[in-house]
Amino acid sequence: MSDDAIAAPEGRRRRGEGSRAGRTGGGAGSRPIPQLPRRKLARAFAPMEIVSKDEIEAIHQTSLKVLSEIGMEFNLPQARDMLKAAGADVQGERVRFDPAMIEQLISTAPSSFTFHARNPANNMHIGGASICFGTVASPPNASCMDKGRRSGNYEDFQNFVKLAQYFSAIDFVAGYPVEPIDIHSSVRHLDALHAMATLTDKPFHAYSTSRQRILDGIEIARLARGISQEQLEREPSLFTIINTNSPLKLDEPMLQGIIEMSSRNQIVCITPFTLAGAMAPVTVAGALVEQNAEALAGMAFTQLVRKGAPVIYGGFTSNVDMKSGAPAFGTPEYMKSTIVGGQLARRYGVPFRTSNTCAANTVDAQAAYESVFSLWGLTMGGGNLIMHGAGWLEGGLVASFEKFVLDVDLIQMVSEFLQPLETTPDALGLEAIREVGPGGHFFGAAHTLARYETAFYTPIVSDWRNNQQWLAAGKPEAWQRANAVFKQALAEYQEPFMEPERRAALDEFVARRKAEGGSPTDF
Amino acid sequence: MSDDAIAAPEGRRRRGEGSRAGRTGGGAGSRPIPQLPRRKLARAFAPMEIVSKDEIEAIHQTSLKVLSEIGMEFNLPQARDMLKAAGADVQGERVRFDPAMIEQLISTAPSSFTFHARNPANNMHIGGASICFGTVASPPNASCMDKGRRSGNYEDFQNFVKLAQYFSAIDFVAGYPVEPIDIHSSVRHLDALHAMATLTDKPFHAYSTSRQRILDGIEIARLARGISQEQLEREPSLFTIINTNSPLKLDEPMLQGIIEMSSRNQIVCITPFTLAGAMAPVTVAGALVEQNAEALAGMAFTQLVRKGAPVIYGGFTSNVDMKSGAPAFGTPEYMKSTIVGGQLARRYGVPFRTSNTCAANTVDAQAAYESVFSLWGLTMGGGNLIMHGAGWLEGGLVASFEKFVLDVDLIQMVSEFLQPLETTPDALGLEAIREVGPGGHFFGAAHTLARYETAFYTPIVSDWRNNQQWLAAGKPEAWQRANAVFKQALAEYQEPFMEPERRAALDEFVARRKAEGGSPTDF
Repeated sequence: MSDDAIAAPEGRRRRGEGSRAGRTGGGAGSRPIPQLPRRKLARAFAPMEIVSKDEIEAIHQTSLKVLSEIGMEFNLPQARDMLKAAGADVQGERVRFDPAMIEQLISTAPSSFTFHARNPANNMHIGGASICFGTVASPPNASCMDKGRRSGNYEDFQNFVKLAQYFSAIDFVAGYPVEPIDIHSSVRHLDALHAMATLTDKPFHAYSTSRQRILDGIEIARLARGISQEQLEREPSLFTIINTNSPLKLDEPMLQGIIEMSSRNQIVCITPFTLAGAMAPVTVAGALVEQNAEALAGMAFTQLVRKGAPVIYGGFTSNVDMKSGAPAFGTPEYMKSTIVGGQLARRYGVPFRTSNTCAANTVDAQAAYESVFSLWGLTMGGGNLIMHGAGWLEGGLVASFEKFVLDVDLIQMVSEFLQPLETTPDALGLEAIREVGPGGHFFGAAHTLARYETAFYTPIVSDWRNNQQWLAAGKPEAWQRANAVFKQALAEYQEPFMEPERRAALDEFVARRKAEGGSPTDF
Repeated sequence: MSDDAIAAPEGRRRRGEGSRAGRTGGGAGSRPIPQLPRRKLARAFAPMEIVSKDEIEAIHQTSLKVLSEIGMEFNLPQARDMLKAAGADVQGERVRFDPAMIEQLISTAPSSFTFHARNPANNMHIGGASICFGTVASPPNASCMDKGRRSGNYEDFQNFVKLAQYFSAIDFVAGYPVEPIDIHSSVRHLDALHAMATLTDKPFHAYSTSRQRILDGIEIARLARGISQEQLEREPSLFTIINTNSPLKLDEPMLQGIIEMSSRNQIVCITPFTLAGAMAPVTVAGALVEQNAEALAGMAFTQLVRKGAPVIYGGFTSNVDMKSGAPAFGTPEYMKSTIVGGQLARRYGVPFRTSNTCAANTVDAQAAYESVFSLWGLTMGGGNLIMHGAGWLEGGLVASFEKFVLDVDLIQMVSEFLQPLETTPDALGLEAIREVGPGGHFFGAAHTLARYETAFYTPIVSDWRNNQQWLAAGKPEAWQRANAVFKQALAEYQEPFMEPERRAALDEFVARRKAEGGSPTDF
């Protein structure tokens, strides 16, 4: 099943204006990019636990103490009024929570839900054993090896969205894959959301950076699906990341985002950004206590807005390099905080969001090992919604086209690892072993000939040529193959079909909102 | 605790002839290589299982059928005589085993044991939750970025042994880190074993490539420890890898190796090399059936030689690229076969050997992701004795100095990941969070100042500088840092002390055996 088949909603295809069908593939001689069939990934094993239930309770109880004794700042008066009315202790901007209030509020958060895409084949199940991988989100810079590192711009933005559509391993667009800084910030969200709603038919994200922006995001998600307000409320079709301003603050636009999204039953992911040693205590356990306190407060607020609104527990605890203050990612500490984050989310019965990260400056061995250590932690630890799945470099300061392809390959390898091992009598191969016997080889065995074409994973990036062949090819490194693949993918990309009425309504809305000035900015 | 402290047996140090104490470190301005304290690594969690107990039984029963219906070739008459006397069905070189005979023989294999080093601080516990990492073994080529790829030679061999001694993450020398092809094969083992016995005080390996060679290896291990034959038999002090000639053959020198090693209670590791699609069925399950049949036959033979002799279940099932026939490593199939291999070894109650592998041609992103996927599988899957832990490149055709350093860093990260998370009240950090409060930062907090120096893992290779600093430094990639580190390590290396009487006995033995012609070769 090809990605193109997925991209066609309800089995229809259109090749014409707005589509790239007229473009040829990656040029004569370029081999097809080996993609896996589109899959709904799930763990078949219990998630790993590295601390005991008692230790989870200690983190939980300490974070409740943080919320009752220290409290958290809520910078939006409307939110404080709601919290006060619900029984919280509000002093100025500081809000303190009775532990029982937190426990009661979060009890209505659902354990899993469906995130609806405009193409139903791309709907995502969030929670339980499911694992969904998104693109990188929010870097201010883009890079590729041909043109180097540059400020984020709309062309690169669109190309990353196209890659998200092209690659079957990517489930959703996790935010702006790169910030399109060349568009004025008052209307940037309109162009960006329009691109995400049209260039892909996978689910996407809107930023809670102002009340107006998130309202525009919700409307664009509704128009892209061509559904009513009522259906939108029944079927979550947009998600937003709510970052606490760690330590212990929730800013005005983030709280507005929760109010607008949760009140409409859209998906909110509460993610404290708790770098141990900087915005959080220098211990992983202490940073997790702070993460947990902030996540609990945010999740509780979503349920105060609307009981049962879909909410995700976000973990983003890593450490800093204590010599320079630089954030570190894909470290042993990051792996541990990811796994304990998963344990905490399951303690509360909500889905868990985590990330595929690295701190490397280029697509070298470091980028790869930090990413695979991240994937190790999040796969074993029960991550459900994986942000920054493909393309993240330099601690999130750069969206890299080569890293995107590398990560797609890594995600595909995780996907293959998660497939059950076939142990049928034929797979056990007794007759093949009998046919070949001692000292023979299996290249020509009937068992081999019947299975060899699909027997093993075919990687996108890995170069398995022998040394002589590799030398003759000019000693290519992994990033060079990745470079060729992203260009081939963009050349082969086809824009997914959108019903003309939906497209017209979407275009009209975006044009009108831009004419109205978008979301006016102060700067 | 530095590696140097470990390197000194019984707390003594000697700086003089044969030592590198006179050499300076890595030059003015080179920073110390950040090594972890020497640790006895162990899993604190249950190993991962990806197939059910029923599926393990299906693999087990099918492999017993292979041994009873197809049988295995034993190319040494002495071995066939022993097997026939024990009740096996011997027809020519083909030996068929009744399932009950296999089950009964392997029942005496010990579940764990101690591998004795000449420095008791470097003794290894093999089995249970223990994880011990060795060097790369057996590549015909060496490489570094300065001098490129070259045939194996004694100078590179010695340098790898020195790195094994220098780095605290390395527990043992797993074989010749590179084949010293510049020494004639009749006496090569004598020079190689002499170097392993003197340049490091960690445990080491001898090849079962002829009866004479393995006997020389056993004697050198005894002399290096300065112990009697009786003590050697009580205290296993040498190990040998027995590779079956897959499919289903055990060659003469390998069987001689088992006889000489097991009869003296030394450590034997039976490792079939079952590449799915080449020497084994094209399915992972089929290759595991073949691996298991060969491992069972080999383990059974060790116990026939001597009940209770220490033996290790070796797994080396990977796949080939079906387009080129090239072996693939660090793949999803490799991860699965590693994890199921661990399940099988635990089914038989014996330690499990596996490897840190990759197929990359250079120390790029591919080398890193294939290695970390290998480490993921073997760490979660319960590997005990890890061959090729550091330095393996090009599917084992090259021992790379840069890869050695990269792997040491990866092993150290695994080591840190395996340390329990501290969850004391102080680590939970409530008072630190109270001190800092909403909107503050933790850089100057008392909690941070008390802990920051040792709070987080300091990597050897990772470059966490920001983009400006990294550009100013000339855009170094991971392999370049690794290149500088291996040279610094060799400059700082100090030969461990050996009692003069032991050294004299060892030197005398090697000189005499060389004068006698070593192990005469036919070619």
